[in-house]
Amino acid sequence: MKKAVALLSGGLDSTTALGIAIEMGYEAHALTLDYAQRHIIEIERAADISRIMGAASHKVMKIDLREFGGSALTDNISVPKEDTGTQVDQTIPVTYVPARNTIFLSLALAFAETLSSGAIFIGVNALDYSGYPDCRPEYIQAFEKMANLATKDAVEKNVEVVIHAPLINLRKCDIVIEASRLGVPLHLTWSCYDPDDNGKPCALCDSCRLRKQGFDEANLADPSMDV
Amino acid sequence: MKKAVALLSGGLDSTTALGIAIEMGYEAHALTLDYAQRHIIEIERAADISRIMGAASHKVMKIDLREFGGSALTDNISVPKEDTGTQVDQTIPVTYVPARNTIFLSLALAFAETLSSGAIFIGVNALDYSGYPDCRPEYIQAFEKMANLATKDAVEKNVEVVIHAPLINLRKCDIVIEASRLGVPLHLTWSCYDPDDNGKPCALCDSCRLRKQGFDEANLADPSMDV
Repeated sequence: MKKAVALLSGGLDSTTALGIAIEMGYEAHALTLDYAQRHIIEIERAADISRIMGAASHKVMKIDLREFGGSALTDNISVPKEDTGTQVDQTIPVTYVPARNTIFLSLALAFAETLSSGAIFIGVNALDYSGYPDCRPEYIQAFEKMANLATKDAVEKNVEVVIHAPLINLRKCDIVIEASRLGVPLHLTWSCYDPDDNGKPCALCDSCRLRKQGFDEANLADPSMDV
Repeated sequence: MKKAVALLSGGLDSTTALGIAIEMGYEAHALTLDYAQRHIIEIERAADISRIMGAASHKVMKIDLREFGGSALTDNISVPKEDTGTQVDQTIPVTYVPARNTIFLSLALAFAETLSSGAIFIGVNALDYSGYPDCRPEYIQAFEKMANLATKDAVEKNVEVVIHAPLINLRKCDIVIEASRLGVPLHLTWSCYDPDDNGKPCALCDSCRLRKQGFDEANLADPSMDV
């Protein structure tokens, strides 16, 4: 059975990407990064999601990005609660984590190589998103090109590295519809950057807004609101 | 003062690259990765080297690559002690660590961005080396191209990411001569992959062999042998 690594944050997008990997027939190995993000709840959710969806394995890798700082997701910087817009021509918000997807994809690349695989799934999305540069198609293509020069398997055994970003050109509502079609455990997916003290989504951060917009436009109820 | 991140393993090459960064006028911030390598002694040496050379800071970041495995440097796989050759057309040896330089450069990229800098120094070398794919010029160029699409600084503030690999086209003996000219603390640099129980270099692994060859061809004594 062909193997793949699926980066799984426990959010809507990465869970859907994992569902697509499994539907495509991959033995999917989920990789979650514990990077000292303030919304640590997503890591617990990722474990539950992996189990329920039948991932072949789930690894949580610790890497403390607070060492570098520079993001509202890891530092003592407030997560913005106003609508910051969702288009690429907006300023990149403070929730951007320096080089996050590059770090995550690099670790996925290492993991994939130990599985003798070059298939990596990531749930990035370049339409209804926060404008992070490392979610754009040209970035993903450049990473893929680099990765095919980076590993022993690629150079010596002709194992092609393919970065699958199956959601990159979908609108958030299409992702919700796709997730629903795949039957992924939407009620467990976690999107909020800044949950309150009772562990409830704030409903105001970019990620909560995009999620709500997606469910609204898909005319579906968000089952995570009942958990 | 312009800032740079210098990846510093504590070996001959990365120490020389740090020396070049400082000579070029950079405020150099050293970054060492504690990836659960068996030759952990190099991390202590990196701290000493940073201090002596006047690096502006030294950060040791932990990331346990044993989680993935697949290398003699992190796993319970023997480090080869025969001469495996040093040319690119040889088989890549088991001391290769999956995606190591990609992971290291990604972390350096994150660190550099928090310093508002795009300058990263790495001591890779593509002539007298073990044949690792992620030491070749085409790999470094591809990483640089990807990095310029990856970060907020690059996309929003036109901060150009430059991966400086000043040793990439030098022979090992030229690196020894350059290190000697720069006055780097060669006696502290550590190259051996597999020190003995008394903490002495094995003198037989690829890295020891390449080091010895470099000093021999440069007609210089290796001061680390007296420590």
